Amino acid sequence: MPANRLLVLLGVLSVSCSAPSALTEVVTAALNDPLPSWHEGAAKTALIDFVTRTTMAGASDFVPPSERTAVFDNDGTLWAEQPLYAQFAFALDRIKALAPQHPEWKTMQPFAAVIDGDLNAVLANGEAGLMRILAASHTGVTTDEFDAIVTQWFTSARHPGTGRRYDEMIYQPMLEVLRYLRANGYKTFIVSGGGVEFIRPWAERVYGIPPEQVVGSRVKVRYELRNDTPVLLRLPEFDLNGDKAGKPVGILQVIGRRPTIAFGNSDDDFEMLEWTTSARGPRLGVIVHHTDAAREWAYDRDSHVGRLARVLDEGPKRGWLIADIKRDWRVVYPTRH
Amino acid sequence: MPANRLLVLLGVLSVSCSAPSALTEVVTAALNDPLPSWHEGAAKTALIDFVTRTTMAGASDFVPPSERTAVFDNDGTLWAEQPLYAQFAFALDRIKALAPQHPEWKTMQPFAAVIDGDLNAVLANGEAGLMRILAASHTGVTTDEFDAIVTQWFTSARHPGTGRRYDEMIYQPMLEVLRYLRANGYKTFIVSGGGVEFIRPWAERVYGIPPEQVVGSRVKVRYELRNDTPVLLRLPEFDLNGDKAGKPVGILQVIGRRPTIAFGNSDDDFEMLEWTTSARGPRLGVIVHHTDAAREWAYDRDSHVGRLARVLDEGPKRGWLIADIKRDWRVVYPTRH
Repeated sequence: MPANRLLVLLGVLSVSCSAPSALTEVVTAALNDPLPSWHEGAAKTALIDFVTRTTMAGASDFVPPSERTAVFDNDGTLWAEQPLYAQFAFALDRIKALAPQHPEWKTMQPFAAVIDGDLNAVLANGEAGLMRILAASHTGVTTDEFDAIVTQWFTSARHPGTGRRYDEMIYQPMLEVLRYLRANGYKTFIVSGGGVEFIRPWAERVYGIPPEQVVGSRVKVRYELRNDTPVLLRLPEFDLNGDKAGKPVGILQVIGRRPTIAFGNSDDDFEMLEWTTSARGPRLGVIVHHTDAAREWAYDRDSHVGRLARVLDEGPKRGWLIADIKRDWRVVYPTRH
Repeated sequence: MPANRLLVLLGVLSVSCSAPSALTEVVTAALNDPLPSWHEGAAKTALIDFVTRTTMAGASDFVPPSERTAVFDNDGTLWAEQPLYAQFAFALDRIKALAPQHPEWKTMQPFAAVIDGDLNAVLANGEAGLMRILAASHTGVTTDEFDAIVTQWFTSARHPGTGRRYDEMIYQPMLEVLRYLRANGYKTFIVSGGGVEFIRPWAERVYGIPPEQVVGSRVKVRYELRNDTPVLLRLPEFDLNGDKAGKPVGILQVIGRRPTIAFGNSDDDFEMLEWTTSARGPRLGVIVHHTDAAREWAYDRDSHVGRLARVLDEGPKRGWLIADIKRDWRVVYPTRH
């Protein structure tokens, strides 16, 4: 970010030029700020303090570089999850795209409701209906085919509320946290309840997180040859449901060590933060709290994107930080280019 | 390695001192050699050629650093697998250590045979017997407990043939390959049919490969609280059998992209090499062939550590390199300190 844009953001361009040394000081501080989109406050201070004392040689809380591991939930933590999970929007679009090959869907629920665009009727089919939508939209293709389908969808789909691409519905303050942690030797991982194959195709470009550092729900796959060429075929059966207690399981399977830092936003992240912060040594848990109806959404306790009561009630007692979007974030989404 | 030790190894200390410039040339070449434990020959040349053309900016085979991924089988590829897989030796030792808590094992097969040290009687119980040994020795404990058990075993167990620690039964030429690839921007992964939790506790110290870059077979785990402290309990059920077609599956689950380079040594690695080398772009498959009964072991085709016929028959037709231990490796194990 250019210095003068940063200064406008920080509101310091009104500082009198008759105080050049004070201005210089502010500029220097601003340019050195690793989290310029975060307001000064308890959350930002505690975050920077934790990173400082775990990375300063000789500090009692020093964590060796190879052990610095930070995990992030995706939906509601790194990007917006309202009004629908992006992956659910993808599933609905995929059903519509496949409908011409499935004339029988016109009279078969929940597909007919999807084709009609009647979301309430879709949801009326309950979890079994959602699983049929997920199976029809996410499986029966090879992993390479699914990667291409997801990549294509992101280029064309737009968020209904903002008109942005879904991969632009990411949180600028969290991008800064990711970069700040990596600059301090932390390896950053996504640990999502969403499908890992839905996130990997774009996570490196958007978050700087490579595929091997994305953990999530996954379906079973079968290795088979097609004209002597091997493929992995996606099967309509969960191999890992990566929410709740599935998060520590996914962390074990893919990362193989206890994280130092965990960020989440809902009760689906409770076990991940519990698993992280109950380990020996310095650990940090952070909850992103959605409090800003004007710039994003305000929701907690019960919500159609999941419950958030337990993390908010128990988190502070366990020393987890609350990052309150309205209070703590100067901006929400990145500036569009 | 100090230069003069290297020169002794290379046999160049006998070069006449009346030719100082020739000596200087040899020394310089030796010091610049990324694979000093490999004899000059087709395998070494092809390996260096592949790394050079995939990492040289502007080369038609250039692979961007973020995509440089090398996967290695462990047993028989990075370390010795004879006369028994180390993990099987661990399982037998673990059964013996647990025997006092299980008086019933004295008359129960396959445990009685293990306690008696009668390997033939153990094997007479077939696969079902092996699974009972694996379950009793590898599960029913938390992941943290298992990590400590494995770590402790490696400090005391010794290879029956050499008297070395098992984590010293590693191949010096392969350590050089790992370092050489990492120095050229490749991320190195283990993809083992062995248990991932048996390898992770020492892979970083021994191979420079961190836990999150170890893929392998795994058991199911259950997240539960013990006195309010969360644990992951290891259950007696496979979550992934990571051999054969399980290798591409493990690669998908944990790495999430097709490797550039794959090293293996048996038919259990066939699908991993097939999956790697059938992808678009420059790919390399390498088979370590055990041909040196004097320094290591000589075995191929059928062996009690698995079949090796298909990789040896089909590999060369597919362009996979054969690294022949007798022919290509100047030394086998690292010098002991």
